[in-house]
Order: sequence, then structure tokens, then C-alpha cells
Amino acid sequence: MKNVELTTLAYVEKDGRYLMMHRTKKKNDINKDKYIGIGGHVEERESPEECILREAKEEAGIVLHNPRLRGILTFLIDDLYEMTFLYTADSFEGELTECNEGDLVWVKKEEIGNLPIWEGDRIFFYLLNTREDVFSLKLTYVQDVLKEVALDGVKLPDWRIWEK
Amino acid sequence: MKNVELTTLAYVEKDGRYLMMHRTKKKNDINKDKYIGIGGHVEERESPEECILREAKEEAGIVLHNPRLRGILTFLIDDLYEMTFLYTADSFEGELTECNEGDLVWVKKEEIGNLPIWEGDRIFFYLLNTREDVFSLKLTYVQDVLKEVALDGVKLPDWRIWEK
Repeated sequence: MKNVELTTLAYVEKDGRYLMMHRTKKKNDINKDKYIGIGGHVEERESPEECILREAKEEAGIVLHNPRLRGILTFLIDDLYEMTFLYTADSFEGELTECNEGDLVWVKKEEIGNLPIWEGDRIFFYLLNTREDVFSLKLTYVQDVLKEVALDGVKLPDWRIWEK
Repeated sequence: MKNVELTTLAYVEKDGRYLMMHRTKKKNDINKDKYIGIGGHVEERESPEECILREAKEEAGIVLHNPRLRGILTFLIDDLYEMTFLYTADSFEGELTECNEGDLVWVKKEEIGNLPIWEGDRIFFYLLNTREDVFSLKLTYVQDVLKEVALDGVKLPDWRIWEK
């Protein structure tokens, strides 16, 4: 097995809002101009939680307390094959810092749907709102158009009913 | 990030026993002569659950129903860096077949501790018995001697109390 990109992604929660990064700064960014959580690539010999703790510190200057694993995301985006450990965290310490990848903003959960986000992200936001257990979501894109969705190994015939 | 080995591992359960493979057949097998569950490497573009379903079919000839993710294992064994999705499954169909990697046997849970297994496996068997949520366990070995254990990001000062 080769060429897997192994990453982490966290949504930090405070007062009904998620911490999101508006990706405006990084060059050649697949997420250019989109809003996503904080996170990044797992470095060699890290466990997933070591990675998300490091990334939260590097990107936002905060220390997460007890990040909670919520889902495993498998992304196929053209030739990209990425597996992502998805976390939420409702407790942290430290003051937000500037990040060189984008602007950090607190977004009300009910307003996330109005922002430019990946189509499949709408599905995992729905799952974060409705599932307590760890889910596995596989998202297949052609460029930035979502073509296929499988949840816990089952292909969803019409995933748009999952969107809010 | 390079050189991560991404794998799955499942313990299929029936009548208080786990399905284990006595790894006697495969050449140059890091698990030589040990007992472990079924599983193997994630192939490119697979999700973790697609991998474990394929491996259960290939290694044991069975179809798992609803394998349940129980833990994320991060193994450091000398230069090996491996991340493993750990599953249990209490329902399956099909008859066990022969496997070219070892002999499949049903082992009573309380007898697993008497078999030749990796030292860290004793820890995750304990966790499988006591935890309902998905845990993250990082196991650092030098050769086959366990040197360090971290559970959910916290280093355990004396993990031998976890063993049964």
C-alpha cells in the first residue's frame, strides 16, 4: 500500500461555534478559499492524537484537552488517497494565534452550511450532530464534485438527504 | 510522512472465543509462531472497513457482519511504523477455510494469556474487555520487548498492571 496521505482534522467547539480556518494564505492549497478545521499530516512515528495535539498548537497556538475521535474519513479526490482521523474537542487552553495557512474564525454551527466548504463535509457535520459512536465515511470526488459516499461500508444511494 | 504501514486486525468472537491465527506458515513473518487475529495491509483506495472485510474473506473465508472499530493501534517496532485499525465482530457467515499464513483456531478468551502473543496485545485484550469507546494505544518495542505504552496520548508508567 503506497501513497496514502495520513492526516488529522479537529473541530474545536466553544459556545455553539466551531473553530474553522478560512484557507486564504497557503500556496497550492487543495482547500484554497474553503473553510475547514485545524489539523494536518501525521508525522512519522506519531499516533493520531499526538498529531492533532501538535497541529492545534502549531496552527492555532492552543492546547487541546482530551480530543475525542469521532470518525475515520477516507478521501479519494482524483489521484489523492487520504485517510483522516476526525476529532472534536470542547476544552482547550491558550489564546488563538495567527496562522500562516489562513484566518481562524469561530463559526456558529448553524451557519457552517452557508460557507464555502467541501460537499462531503456537510455529511460529516450532520454525523457529528447525530452520532455518538465513531463512524467511517468514504468520500469519492472528481475534482471538487462529490461522486460517491459510503458510510460504515455501505454506499449511500442518495446522500443529499444527509445535508442540512 | 512516509513509510507508514496501514493495516487492519480483527478478533471474530463466537461462544466466548476469539478466532486467532497461529502464524506458522508465512516466510519472514514478524509474527512467526505467535497467535494474532485476522487482518492485513490496507490496499490503495480502500477504507479500513473495506480492508477488514476483504481480509476476513481472503484469510478465513468468512463474511463479517458489522465489524466494530474498537481501537487505533500505533506500533513502533524498531524501524517499523505501523498503524492498525482494530475491530471485533460477533457475527459472520461462511465456513472457515484453510489459510496459507497459519492455522485458524478458536481460543477461549481466558486462555489467550497462556499463548505466545505480543506483550502489548495483552493490553488491548484487557481494553477490549473493559472499554466500550474507541481507544488509541501506542506500543513501542525494541525487537519483541515492549518498552513504552501510551493510552489515549498518556504514557502509562507501569502498564504491567493492565495485564491479566
